[in-house]
Amino acid sequence: MTDFAATRAAFHLPEGIIYLDGNSLGPLPKAAAARVGRTVTAEWGDMLIRAWNRAGWMEMPARLGDRIGRLIGAPPGTVVLGDTLSIKVYQALAAALELNPARRVILSDTGNFPSDLYMADGLVRTLGDGYELRTVPPEEVEAAIGPETAVLMLTEVDYRTGRLHDMAALTAKAHAAGALTVWDLAHSAGALPVDVTGAGADFAVGCTYKYLNSGPGGPAFIHVAPRWADRARPALSGWLGHEAPFAFDPAYRPGRGIERMRVGTPPVLQMAALEAALDIWDGVDMADVRARSIELSQAFVAGVEAACPALVLASPRDPARRGSQVSFRHPEGYAIMQALIARGVIGDFRAPDILRFGFTPLYTTMEEVAGAVAILAEIMEKGLWDRAEYRVKAAVT
Amino acid sequence: MTDFAATRAAFHLPEGIIYLDGNSLGPLPKAAAARVGRTVTAEWGDMLIRAWNRAGWMEMPARLGDRIGRLIGAPPGTVVLGDTLSIKVYQALAAALELNPARRVILSDTGNFPSDLYMADGLVRTLGDGYELRTVPPEEVEAAIGPETAVLMLTEVDYRTGRLHDMAALTAKAHAAGALTVWDLAHSAGALPVDVTGAGADFAVGCTYKYLNSGPGGPAFIHVAPRWADRARPALSGWLGHEAPFAFDPAYRPGRGIERMRVGTPPVLQMAALEAALDIWDGVDMADVRARSIELSQAFVAGVEAACPALVLASPRDPARRGSQVSFRHPEGYAIMQALIARGVIGDFRAPDILRFGFTPLYTTMEEVAGAVAILAEIMEKGLWDRAEYRVKAAVT
Repeated sequence: MTDFAATRAAFHLPEGIIYLDGNSLGPLPKAAAARVGRTVTAEWGDMLIRAWNRAGWMEMPARLGDRIGRLIGAPPGTVVLGDTLSIKVYQALAAALELNPARRVILSDTGNFPSDLYMADGLVRTLGDGYELRTVPPEEVEAAIGPETAVLMLTEVDYRTGRLHDMAALTAKAHAAGALTVWDLAHSAGALPVDVTGAGADFAVGCTYKYLNSGPGGPAFIHVAPRWADRARPALSGWLGHEAPFAFDPAYRPGRGIERMRVGTPPVLQMAALEAALDIWDGVDMADVRARSIELSQAFVAGVEAACPALVLASPRDPARRGSQVSFRHPEGYAIMQALIARGVIGDFRAPDILRFGFTPLYTTMEEVAGAVAILAEIMEKGLWDRAEYRVKAAVT
Repeated sequence: MTDFAATRAAFHLPEGIIYLDGNSLGPLPKAAAARVGRTVTAEWGDMLIRAWNRAGWMEMPARLGDRIGRLIGAPPGTVVLGDTLSIKVYQALAAALELNPARRVILSDTGNFPSDLYMADGLVRTLGDGYELRTVPPEEVEAAIGPETAVLMLTEVDYRTGRLHDMAALTAKAHAAGALTVWDLAHSAGALPVDVTGAGADFAVGCTYKYLNSGPGGPAFIHVAPRWADRARPALSGWLGHEAPFAFDPAYRPGRGIERMRVGTPPVLQMAALEAALDIWDGVDMADVRARSIELSQAFVAGVEAACPALVLASPRDPARRGSQVSFRHPEGYAIMQALIARGVIGDFRAPDILRFGFTPLYTTMEEVAGAVAILAEIMEKGLWDRAEYRVKAAVT
């Protein structure tokens, strides 16, 4: 049984804040400050260039990738860290399209995170030659998979509503139709049990700064199913994906398996923070996380619906059909969220009208959920959100 | 006049080490540890998600880009940070090819850093349609520029020999032939005066962890000439390059100017280290850096040639024709470098036979150059490199 009191104690959680935005940026693992500090002073500072070998920097992308693999059902040697999620989407998509050369259509849904759609759009424009990105509403994806579909590219958990796709069923449908799959696990990894192997996913990508708590701009990850790992061509063929990077061979020869998905020099300071964050995940059972996540989110939904009739649930009511977040709609959602933040309850706003709340069992308590409901209820009851200052849009919302 | 004693005092330089590898990984700016620590604890830790606005994280790629711009002759608003150099090469190349649609050839040289060639290879394979990467020896580049050349892609300073291309002359030749240029400044930025604007460069890219001292895996930069900035299509079209990222528009609309070259969430901890590193560059005059660099490298060449007849200069003898590094060849170069490192003189080895030494005026002194020469002379005279342990290849060389 996962000890959530112990995992909570491992985070720095500022006094007076109820943090329901760990699905956007996870909080600071207490050990990360010292871990990053050691990398800066004892490794970079004292070892200088020798740290690439002595401190094991060069192997970190694969070593930490394996630790993330455990959380998403990926076997050792099939996950590697690096770049940003958008870049990893591009890599996965480009490789998947080439593995299905007779077809031209990337199928996705309109609820996908925009950057995934933008990267796909950029790729099909670069490819030309009839390649096409086609999007349908999330509920129509299954029916839209067909003989033209080269790659089904989906984000498992919708970033706005939390709606959960059935990865196994959609992957099976895609495979039956002769398509490959690219799954974005941005809101899944560390949020709920994921089994990329059991689901038969061909490629999976995700980020580490949300539920995995690696800090701002932490590296992304990519998983390639073993059956493709030695056949996938990395369109972004960087030197660290070469079979022998330090041979400085003028011709590119892809590295073995997942190693070829590396591109350039990895961000060592960010990886140090990630390493401290992953230490907290040791011993955490994803089934416990899921049970606790549902307990937290159900209490929140019940509390908000009882106290705030003007807020309309935007997430699936059935917790089995959503990830670890809950969203409500309100035309004044932006101002309401600012009023909440001013009172120490941090969620976020997603255009046009969504108030989004993430539930992160490693550190969120039932008492915090009750506290957030009470503050939101007071804001709604007294119209406290109705102030000009809460309508001033920040650069980042 | 630049105060090199003051800049040297700003770095942590381990006792007993003569560091001649700042062209691979710059040393730790003393202020970086506290700066990164503050970002971790006071920003990430205490501000949480609000730090994107409150701590100005979202603007860092452009703000720090402008500070690098000063060092490479790029006007404000034309440089942005992010990703790795390999990714930035891909972005620049893809955009440049599209701006010259009637042609199909990327021209480069065989001395280019392999990752640039690999990325170009990956891009032409993705493009198909007759696109081609053509490489010639460095000294044949000028003659090879012709009516088929779509893009001339060169690294200004050869990573092995330090040989310096004439950026202005080759760019003029390329333009006269109807080609665009992509310049890789990995071994130029912070190493010698660069004037991308004066040279007429169309695109320039570089990394920050060498001469700019941003730390392991620090972000890369890209410069796009103002005349192209609003026309260049970012093949890697990520959400932070969108005109309005937080509108979460399903359709991609490129941001204004250089902003469109942003892709995903920037690495905030790495940028914090870079910011501390750039503080040291304030008040540094690149002409002083160049003069001092030549003084250091000339003393090294003279000393080594006088004391070590078995080492053959691999760099141009004329300092005006090389960057801020000097290389010597020897069949046992690897073992010789290991013997040097064992004695506290850190340079690096580049296959097959190159001993490479970087001269970085911000912190390298004439006394260190003399010390390095003396130690190298002793190693060569007494054959101290001839030990089995010095022949064991490390993962990173």
